[in-house]
Amino acid sequence: MNFITFTEEKLRSFTYSVFKKMGCSDEHAELATDVLIRSDLRGIDSHGVARLSGYVRLWEKKRINATPNIKVVYETPTTATVDGDGGLGLVVAPFAMKVAIEKAEKYGSGWVAVKNSNHFGIAGYHALLAVEKDMIGISMTNASPLVAPTYANERLLGTNPMCYAFPAGKYPPVIVDMATAAAANGKLEIAQRANKEIPDGWVQDKDGNSSTNPNELKSGGSLLPLGSDKDHGSHKGYGLSATVDILSAVLSGANYGPWVPPFVAFLEPDANPVGEGIGHFLGAMRVDGFRPADDFKSHLDNWIERFKSAKTINSNQRVIIPGEPEAEAELERKVSGIPIIDVVVNDLNELAAKFGIQGL
Amino acid sequence: MNFITFTEEKLRSFTYSVFKKMGCSDEHAELATDVLIRSDLRGIDSHGVARLSGYVRLWEKKRINATPNIKVVYETPTTATVDGDGGLGLVVAPFAMKVAIEKAEKYGSGWVAVKNSNHFGIAGYHALLAVEKDMIGISMTNASPLVAPTYANERLLGTNPMCYAFPAGKYPPVIVDMATAAAANGKLEIAQRANKEIPDGWVQDKDGNSSTNPNELKSGGSLLPLGSDKDHGSHKGYGLSATVDILSAVLSGANYGPWVPPFVAFLEPDANPVGEGIGHFLGAMRVDGFRPADDFKSHLDNWIERFKSAKTINSNQRVIIPGEPEAEAELERKVSGIPIIDVVVNDLNELAAKFGIQGL
Repeated sequence: MNFITFTEEKLRSFTYSVFKKMGCSDEHAELATDVLIRSDLRGIDSHGVARLSGYVRLWEKKRINATPNIKVVYETPTTATVDGDGGLGLVVAPFAMKVAIEKAEKYGSGWVAVKNSNHFGIAGYHALLAVEKDMIGISMTNASPLVAPTYANERLLGTNPMCYAFPAGKYPPVIVDMATAAAANGKLEIAQRANKEIPDGWVQDKDGNSSTNPNELKSGGSLLPLGSDKDHGSHKGYGLSATVDILSAVLSGANYGPWVPPFVAFLEPDANPVGEGIGHFLGAMRVDGFRPADDFKSHLDNWIERFKSAKTINSNQRVIIPGEPEAEAELERKVSGIPIIDVVVNDLNELAAKFGIQGL
Repeated sequence: MNFITFTEEKLRSFTYSVFKKMGCSDEHAELATDVLIRSDLRGIDSHGVARLSGYVRLWEKKRINATPNIKVVYETPTTATVDGDGGLGLVVAPFAMKVAIEKAEKYGSGWVAVKNSNHFGIAGYHALLAVEKDMIGISMTNASPLVAPTYANERLLGTNPMCYAFPAGKYPPVIVDMATAAAANGKLEIAQRANKEIPDGWVQDKDGNSSTNPNELKSGGSLLPLGSDKDHGSHKGYGLSATVDILSAVLSGANYGPWVPPFVAFLEPDANPVGEGIGHFLGAMRVDGFRPADDFKSHLDNWIERFKSAKTINSNQRVIIPGEPEAEAELERKVSGIPIIDVVVNDLNELAAKFGIQGL
């Protein structure tokens, strides 16, 4: 595996050109680009430009609408449902978070369920929009069914991430941004490329037996919920994933469970959907709706310092604050550039050729 | 181990008498009783009358105030902070949830952080108060430090449960109510009584090594977060537990992390607290703030039916809907009574003797 390092600006201008070629407005192309590049900057390589050709393939199949009319279709002072009109989740989710933030500015909190959307990139991007306003940000989304609930031998849930983000004072925000599966699909792909076994407890084979083969999903296997098996709390991972599914889709009118349309273009969506597109759920709460913001931040700083200085098992490994590695990656990659693996570079250059734009 | 079965009424009147002897008002004694008995009815024996003598011991040490002045001390239209005045969490949390529900009735959603409280019983009780009003109920609490974050060899977090509850149509509510540790302390106690080993991945010993000894907490060990180890996602369980801690305590002004006062009376609270008492976080969102309630419920019924009929690994074990076993226990125990283990019956009869009331 070889990596080629690009400047942030180079990747931004390339990604923007691709979204423009899809027919996105300037504003949408810029926003979608920002979501993907922020992911690469923050070291979450699986959700950045590596996904760009996937979005293009869905657009080619007319499963993504590049010029959506995104709008609020139902609301109270602090709740709303947004119809994404089949647009990129990368632009639908920030629209919905903006609605949540505006409601929170007026009433203390705002909550938006989204239907008729697509893959929204990293959950943390959207939650951070609230953090910038001294709010607690919450974001979640359902996703293509890959995970078997406890006891099931069938893929009924996505890796359904949930994210909670909190503004700190002198430290970066605390950001819990996690798939509710034991391991997300990206980790299996890394093992596939390296031709390595995966730990027991990430997947089961087509008969429901635990497996260490990273290719198991291709032969009818399933990912396992966080907790891996009943003894270790897989019913909890399943419950969290169910929570994300219900808030994102049963509440909004999107597809849920096994009906969620697949992200990959070579799999067709269910012929009898129970809703529209995939669903998200976004929330914002003003910190100063509960106590003065400075008090909250100074106590969160104290929390961070106490956990960072915890006694550890190995003296060379300290406790990590959720969101800390991503904040460090962002600082570093802003300066030294973003390394992209060669297979992704080739993939992006094929896109460039197809659209007649300058490659990387 | 022997069980003695009591009627719900018998246990209620006994429990009520104990709270009255502590000096609780009629209203508070009735409410606290309801929280404990509902737990026993729902089969969550660890959080019902088995805890009663624990509350009494904290009251004897003047760490529970039987006549609290519970009040809102900070608010916006949809957010508030409640000061529990050192009262029983069993009465403070329902007060806070009532505030959340009233805000939701007016504005669509309501969110309440609570400080200066104590152990609130089962999280599900409070979330269900919202479900009865066709709202989504959320409840969480921090708790005495027993859990070591990933890489730590120190107890910094409680088993910090989170609960999400959703009203269905023809089925019982979907209730995800879970400790964010791999296994809660109650499961260790069961293994201790049975003199059995516990699965690897629930606890670590005082040096941070994984252990199968259920007594490990007594010799300096720690519970592990959901996920058990880094390979299996313990950083996610740690992140969820941190989320509960921050929402419940950093937001409200309660104690957090290692400063949370212990539930057991023989351990003293930290001499230099960072806040007041323990903290909770409660929320309510009107389902019809997002779509008509009947639409939501009929889709949730469809969700439930699809998951219940999933293909399973063993034909004799179907997929369980979160909250289903508790709803079944409640139906059954309402009729056939509540079995209480003999050691708990003895403990309650000692309480009766101390207070000069009729024993069980």
